[in-house]
Amino acid sequence: NISTEETVFKPHEGVNQSPIPLEINRLNENEVQINMTAQITDIEIDKGVFYKAWTFNGEAPGPVIVVKEGDFIHFSLKNMDPAVPHSMDFHAVHAAPSEKFIDVMPNESGTFTYEASKPGVFMYHCGTEPVLQHIANGMHGVMIVTPKGGYETDKEIAREYVLIQNEWYDYNNLESMKNEEPTHVVFSTKALKTDELNTNGNAFSLKEMPLQAKVGEKVRLYLNNVGPNETSSLHVVGTIFDDVYIDGNPANHLEGMQTVLLPASGGAVVEFTVKEAGTYPIVTHQFNHAEKGAIAHLEVTN
Amino acid sequence: NISTEETVFKPHEGVNQSPIPLEINRLNENEVQINMTAQITDIEIDKGVFYKAWTFNGEAPGPVIVVKEGDFIHFSLKNMDPAVPHSMDFHAVHAAPSEKFIDVMPNESGTFTYEASKPGVFMYHCGTEPVLQHIANGMHGVMIVTPKGGYETDKEIAREYVLIQNEWYDYNNLESMKNEEPTHVVFSTKALKTDELNTNGNAFSLKEMPLQAKVGEKVRLYLNNVGPNETSSLHVVGTIFDDVYIDGNPANHLEGMQTVLLPASGGAVVEFTVKEAGTYPIVTHQFNHAEKGAIAHLEVTN
Amino acid sequence: NISTEETVFKPHEGVNQSPIPLEINRLNENEVQINMTAQITDIEIDKGVFYKAWTFNGEAPGPVIVVKEGDFIHFSLKNMDPAVPHSMDFHAVHAAPSEKFIDVMPNESGTFTYEASKPGVFMYHCGTEPVLQHIANGMHGVMIVTPKGGYETDKEIAREYVLIQNEWYDYNNLESMKNEEPTHVVFSTKALKTDELNTNGNAFSLKEMPLQAKVGEKVRLYLNNVGPNETSSLHVVGTIFDDVYIDGNPANHLEGMQTVLLPASGGAVVEFTVKEAGTYPIVTHQFNHAEKGAIAHLEVTN
Ligand SMILES: [Cu+2]
Ligand SMILES: [Cu+2]
Ligand SMILES: [Cu+2]
Ligand SMILES: [Cu+2]
Ligand SMILES: [Cu+2]
Ligand SMILES: [Cu+2]
Ligand code: NA
Ligand code: NA
Ligand code: NA
Ligand code: NA
Ligand code: NA
Ligand code: NA
Ligand SMILES: [Zn+2]
Ligand SMILES: [Zn+2]
Ligand SMILES: [Zn+2]
Ligand SMILES: [Zn+2]
Ligand SMILES: [Zn+2]
Ligand SMILES: [Zn+2]
Ligand SMILES: [Zn+2]
Ligand SMILES: [Zn+2]
Ligand SMILES: [Zn+2]
Repeated sequence: NISTEETVFKPHEGVNQSPIPLEINRLNENEVQINMTAQITDIEIDKGVFYKAWTFNGEAPGPVIVVKEGDFIHFSLKNMDPAVPHSMDFHAVHAAPSEKFIDVMPNESGTFTYEASKPGVFMYHCGTEPVLQHIANGMHGVMIVTPKGGYETDKEIAREYVLIQNEWYDYNNLESMKNEEPTHVVFSTKALKTDELNTNGNAFSLKEMPLQAKVGEKVRLYLNNVGPNETSSLHVVGTIFDDVYIDGNPANHLEGMQTVLLPASGGAVVEFTVKEAGTYPIVTHQFNHAEKGAIAHLEVTN
Repeated sequence: NISTEETVFKPHEGVNQSPIPLEINRLNENEVQINMTAQITDIEIDKGVFYKAWTFNGEAPGPVIVVKEGDFIHFSLKNMDPAVPHSMDFHAVHAAPSEKFIDVMPNESGTFTYEASKPGVFMYHCGTEPVLQHIANGMHGVMIVTPKGGYETDKEIAREYVLIQNEWYDYNNLESMKNEEPTHVVFSTKALKTDELNTNGNAFSLKEMPLQAKVGEKVRLYLNNVGPNETSSLHVVGTIFDDVYIDGNPANHLEGMQTVLLPASGGAVVEFTVKEAGTYPIVTHQFNHAEKGAIAHLEVTN
Repeated sequence: NISTEETVFKPHEGVNQSPIPLEINRLNENEVQINMTAQITDIEIDKGVFYKAWTFNGEAPGPVIVVKEGDFIHFSLKNMDPAVPHSMDFHAVHAAPSEKFIDVMPNESGTFTYEASKPGVFMYHCGTEPVLQHIANGMHGVMIVTPKGGYETDKEIAREYVLIQNEWYDYNNLESMKNEEPTHVVFSTKALKTDELNTNGNAFSLKEMPLQAKVGEKVRLYLNNVGPNETSSLHVVGTIFDDVYIDGNPANHLEGMQTVLLPASGGAVVEFTVKEAGTYPIVTHQFNHAEKGAIAHLEVTN
């Protein structure tokens, strides 16, 4: 496709912008300032396999954002891409998409405000056309909106992690994204606190550097399946989810589940207890996808 | 396939029967008479792309039917297809399929009675073998059975629409329906009252003629994903579902969801508030499918 | 692939081991002994089509196992496969996978203990790498853990059956399992009591030998979709699920559903009433899969 060749491939040739850290500053009790970038950054999606990703802040998925239920968000997006417009669609907010999820041109910035009205584990993503291409190329991530009243199981939780599933397709190939199987289906985790593990969506990091827990602990995962195309049948080998909150809303409480089915863009909070020391694989039980990378390890020690 | 050539393609050549309106008449407090047709009618599934659909009443999906929980239905199906038997499988009723969902021969009529026992948003479809072919060719639709006690959120609702997702495949190609990707995944809406918008399942109508709402309103959608093959990850950009009733049953109440996962033939009632003026896309967040047509627009004005 | 040729195909050539019955013995109020085999056994997946399956106890899916919530399980796996290691991953238990779901070498036995901590309809499967291959070749099944307090609808149930969905792919072809459509999607039932119907996952048995019920009865199905790759949109034609317990946990109660969406490895208890005599097809409403075999019949008589 000549148009893609001239408008995307050539301008991105040799471009590999260093990740710019997310900026998030609380202005007061109910307002936060969030500054992000759209940028072109190489992501190692499998050992030695690099994807020239379209990213938020040089990560794919982008950095996790944590706000509180009811926060007003002042958001700024700086588009560092030399060639392609990008934008931001936060599932966590109420906003008119045609006004506030609009394109920011190359080398420009856009600012927007909206409210994070409801608690949960929400996807964010670039909403520029064709949306499939922008998500599949890496422009996705998770915003956690913590509930005002908490979760009824908050006091039982010893640790918590973010876990995100995403797919990779043939590079920037819209036809492949529409009609073919993903080449990789992968997991990533994102640091909730400084110094915590923070990985891109790849087939190896969460096997080489397992998530950690201690025997007897109850562990919480903030899950989202950012797609762009597939559902996820999320399962932790060796345990059962004591508690599940669909889309992370405290009202949507299920119990004793072996597997949680996440829609494309769907979230959940899942909690489980690890009773013995050892390694617990986390998988999508759609095992063609696990085979393509979607296995993480949780290491449980005494 | 010679058999298909002689039994389907040739008899349908040049046939394009004008839509016959659905007839629904209330006989008394607990009984309704419903008369429908099976007919061959050209449907424009994309701009300039016509599909010689197998339809109920010349629409694909067929007309929406609204009855009350507990209604007895007297149903008549007139098969106007010159060549192929058809039938009616209502998910909303309790009935012996081998007695009451049976084939009606070409140019004949069949009459059946059954009860709409439970409230919800139910699929209906032709149940003639091979069922996959009859559904994929257009013989599907939605029956809403309104709950005796209503929904607990009824008083908050300012408007309501029907939204249906269906797939189209290579024309009448059973092998494609079984093993290939859909060529189009589309939405339609169906008029709940006279003069309301009523569209077929295509890639353009609900972009050219958006659904309408006013700022501050709470909008309800009656959803069903009639398939035949794919799940749907239903999402409205720019808002969050305040309330969700799985399969439309008032007992199955979830809250604060970004996305609802509909099984093939699954329904839901979803409700959301639009707080600002602008255009809100409605999508399946399985974005390969959105890319193939499954985007509708909701226009919100002051 | 030469490695597969030498390590799998040649050693399995001509091997067809007779099914060894499951051994399950209650030791006391809270302990059971379960002895199973891993064995190579031909399974007729469609009329005249045989698959040299990797099985538990010569069945695919393996035999149903019923224990009580809180039971300690003493488990022994005898690997009769002359060439390939196998293992057992019970979704129903809390256990360190790296210790208790480990490989048992050809012609050896392994013993393990763990607790069935929570009630539900749980998948079990071989967890040996590549897991996709071991599941797709037939090493899957269901363990029912009956809830201490029962289900709130227990007294209404007249009969109950196990129904399992699984997929078959090109024989032992990992590339096909990863990237192609299944050749067959099928149902099976498993005997809960001696002399009850017990079938393998094939396209014909549950059409030739329908499940049975009487007019007016409420029927319960213990469902699991063992995959390995696809979701299931489980629906019974001619009726509506009165009650659904997601993953079979009594706390996860939904009502009035037309279709239940099962993740890969997901379970459910569904209950429905049959009001008239006749044949009721049970399908996955992902009709490409129903077309490939996933239709069972329920025969309802006066
Ligand atoms: Cu973008
Ligand atoms: Cu498993
Ligand atoms: Cu038909
Ligand atoms: Cu149906
Ligand atoms: Cu979105
Ligand atoms: Cu095995
Ligand atoms: Na797929
Ligand atoms: Na497990
Ligand atoms: Na597909
Ligand atoms: Na949104
Ligand atoms: Na498929
Ligand atoms: Na039905
Ligand atoms: Zn790889
Ligand atoms: Zn547990
Ligand atoms: Zn609760
Ligand atoms: Zn098109
Ligand atoms: Zn059939
Ligand atoms: Zn809202
Ligand atoms: Zn409620
Ligand atoms: Zn076959
Ligand atoms: Zn109940």
